[in-house]
Amino acid sequence: MGLRDEIFEQPDVLQRWLDTQLPHAQRVAEIIRARDVEYVFLAARGTSDHAGIYAQYLWGSLNRLPVALAAPSLFTLYSGSPRLQKALVVGISQSGESPDVVSVLAEGRRQGALTLAITNAPASPLAQTAELTVDIRAGAETAVAATKTYTAELMAVAALSAALSDASEYLGALARVPGAVRQALTLEERAQQIAAQHRALTRCVVLGRGYDYASAQEWALKLKELAYVFADPYSAADFLHGPIAIVERGFPVFVIAPRGAALNDLLTLLHRFRDEYQADLLVISDDDGALALAPSALKLPGDVPEWLTPLVTIIPAQLYAYHLTRAKGYDTQAPRGLHKVTLTR
Amino acid sequence: MGLRDEIFEQPDVLQRWLDTQLPHAQRVAEIIRARDVEYVFLAARGTSDHAGIYAQYLWGSLNRLPVALAAPSLFTLYSGSPRLQKALVVGISQSGESPDVVSVLAEGRRQGALTLAITNAPASPLAQTAELTVDIRAGAETAVAATKTYTAELMAVAALSAALSDASEYLGALARVPGAVRQALTLEERAQQIAAQHRALTRCVVLGRGYDYASAQEWALKLKELAYVFADPYSAADFLHGPIAIVERGFPVFVIAPRGAALNDLLTLLHRFRDEYQADLLVISDDDGALALAPSALKLPGDVPEWLTPLVTIIPAQLYAYHLTRAKGYDTQAPRGLHKVTLTR
Repeated sequence: MGLRDEIFEQPDVLQRWLDTQLPHAQRVAEIIRARDVEYVFLAARGTSDHAGIYAQYLWGSLNRLPVALAAPSLFTLYSGSPRLQKALVVGISQSGESPDVVSVLAEGRRQGALTLAITNAPASPLAQTAELTVDIRAGAETAVAATKTYTAELMAVAALSAALSDASEYLGALARVPGAVRQALTLEERAQQIAAQHRALTRCVVLGRGYDYASAQEWALKLKELAYVFADPYSAADFLHGPIAIVERGFPVFVIAPRGAALNDLLTLLHRFRDEYQADLLVISDDDGALALAPSALKLPGDVPEWLTPLVTIIPAQLYAYHLTRAKGYDTQAPRGLHKVTLTR
Repeated sequence: MGLRDEIFEQPDVLQRWLDTQLPHAQRVAEIIRARDVEYVFLAARGTSDHAGIYAQYLWGSLNRLPVALAAPSLFTLYSGSPRLQKALVVGISQSGESPDVVSVLAEGRRQGALTLAITNAPASPLAQTAELTVDIRAGAETAVAATKTYTAELMAVAALSAALSDASEYLGALARVPGAVRQALTLEERAQQIAAQHRALTRCVVLGRGYDYASAQEWALKLKELAYVFADPYSAADFLHGPIAIVERGFPVFVIAPRGAALNDLLTLLHRFRDEYQADLLVISDDDGALALAPSALKLPGDVPEWLTPLVTIIPAQLYAYHLTRAKGYDTQAPRGLHKVTLTR
C-alpha cells in the first residue's frame, strides 16, 4: 500500500464509514444535543486541524455552534487554562497520540465539559481521555502524508453536523459523497499532465473561502510536505488584507472555487489575477466560468451540495500533489524530516 | 510622516495611551466582569487579526477566557450565524470599516451579546455598532503597512487583560512597556546591517510560540506586504506537523524566542535547524543561549514580563522589514496592490 493506493481507497473508506458508523455518530449527536453546550472548543494539529477548520465553518453555519480552534500551547505551556465547562471539547487526531491535543481533552474532562475524540485509533490516549469517540475507521495509513484519514475525518464532522440538525435531507446528502469522490478520482490523468508541466514549481499561493478554506489549507500542506513547494494558503478575504502584495506577474495562484456562496467573490479575484497580474492560475471547480479563466483547470463532478464540497475538492488536489512529487523525483511515501506520528507538547 | 517615523513614534503612542486611556479600559473591564460571559468571539483581518491571536493566548491564560477567532465569512456568506448570546463579541480594526468585521459585531449585538470594538477610529462603523469601544489613540497612520496601530492594539488587549485580572502587578507591568519599546528601537543599526546582507532574500519561515506566535504572524505579514518576501509564519509546534519538510540546507529560518515558557522548545528546534539543516538563522531574543545559535541575532532588552513580550519583540522585526524593503529598492509607504483600508465582505 502506498500513497496513491490510499488516495484511491477513499470512496470505499467513506462508504464503509457510512455503512457501519453513521448510527453511532447519530447517538453521539443525541448526547451532545442533550447537554447545555454553548460553543465548541476544538484541538488538532496538521492535517487534522484542517478538518477542524471545516468543523468551524460547517457547525457554525448549519448548527449555529461557535467553534473556537484551540491553541493547544495554552494548555501545555502556561499555568492558567481557559474555563471550558459550557464547551463541547473536541480533539481530532489520526493517531490520537499528540500529547498537546490530549492535554486539551484532559483539561476539558477535568472541568466537567463534554469531550469528544475523532480519531483513527479508538484505543489511543485521545480516545481513552474523551467521554465520546467517533472512530473514523480509515484503516492503516502507511504514507506519512495523510489522505484517506483526512477525508474520513471530514465525513465524521459532516455526519455529526447532519445528525445535529433536524433536517433529514442533510443525512441523505452524505450518501452521495462516496460516488462523487469516485468520480473526482477520474481527474488523475489531467492532474498528472498539469503536474508534469509544473515540475519546476517552487512556490505558489492557494486560495479558498468558506467551507473550502479547509481544502486550501490542506492542499498547501500536501504541497509542502510532499513536493517541498512553498505553498501559502489563504482565505480569499484575508489575502486581500496584505499578502496579495507578494503576487507578481506570472505568479502561480491555485484557487478552489466550487459553486456556492463564495463563488462570486472568487470569480472577481480570478478575473483580477488573470487581467492585472497575468498570474499562472490553476483552478479546481465545478463552475465552467471559473474553469475558463485558468490555463490549468480541474473540473469537479457537480453533484454534491455546497456544504459537502470539501470532501470532493481535495481529491484532485491530492492527485496533483502526488504526481508533482513524482515529477520532481521525491519520495511520496516518507518525506524528509517527517514521521507518521508527531508528538508535540 | 513615513513608515520609519511611525515605527519610532511607538513609545510615545503607548505612553500616551496609558496616560489617557487606561482608566476607560478599566471601566470597560468592569462592565465585562459584570456580565455572564462564557467565552470571547473575536473578529479581525490582517494585522489586527494578529492582535486577536495575542488576545487568544493572553486572555486564555491570564483570564481563563476561551477565545474563538471568528471566520467572518460565516456571517457574510452563509445564512445561519452562530449563537453568540453568552459571548463577548470583539472586533479589532484600525479603520473600523471592513464590512465583514462590522457584520460580526452587528450580529452579536442583534443577539444581545456584549460587544466591544478596539479601533483607531472611534466614529467608525465598527465603533458605532459596538456597545463598548476602546480607542487605541495611535493618531493617523499614513503608511499602508500597520506598525503603531498594531502595538497600540496589543496594548489595549494587554490592558484589558490586566484590568480583568485581580492582580495589581499586571497593571503595574504595563508602565514598563514604553521604555522597553524605546530600548528595542536602538536595534535599528543592527537590523539594517542584517537587512543589507539579506537583500536577495525571497522566502523564509518565521516561527514563534505561545504569546509570540502573534509576533511571528505579524513579522511574516510585514515581510510579505513591504519586501514581497514569501514569508511563512508558524507556531513552532504546528511546524513540526508537516511544514518542516520544506526546510532544506541553508533555508532562511527566522525565530522569535524570548525567555519564558516556550523558550526550551524553541531552543531544541534552533539546535536542530543549525545542526541538521545548516539553516540560515535569524533570531530575536533576550536569551544569550538562543542568540548564540544564530549568525544573525537581534538582542532584546530583557525587562518586560513574558506576557508583554509581543509588544517588544515586534519592534526589531518591523525595523528589519523596513530596511529590507529599502535594501531591495521597494516603496515603504505604499506597497503594490494594497490600500490603507481594505473592505472585504
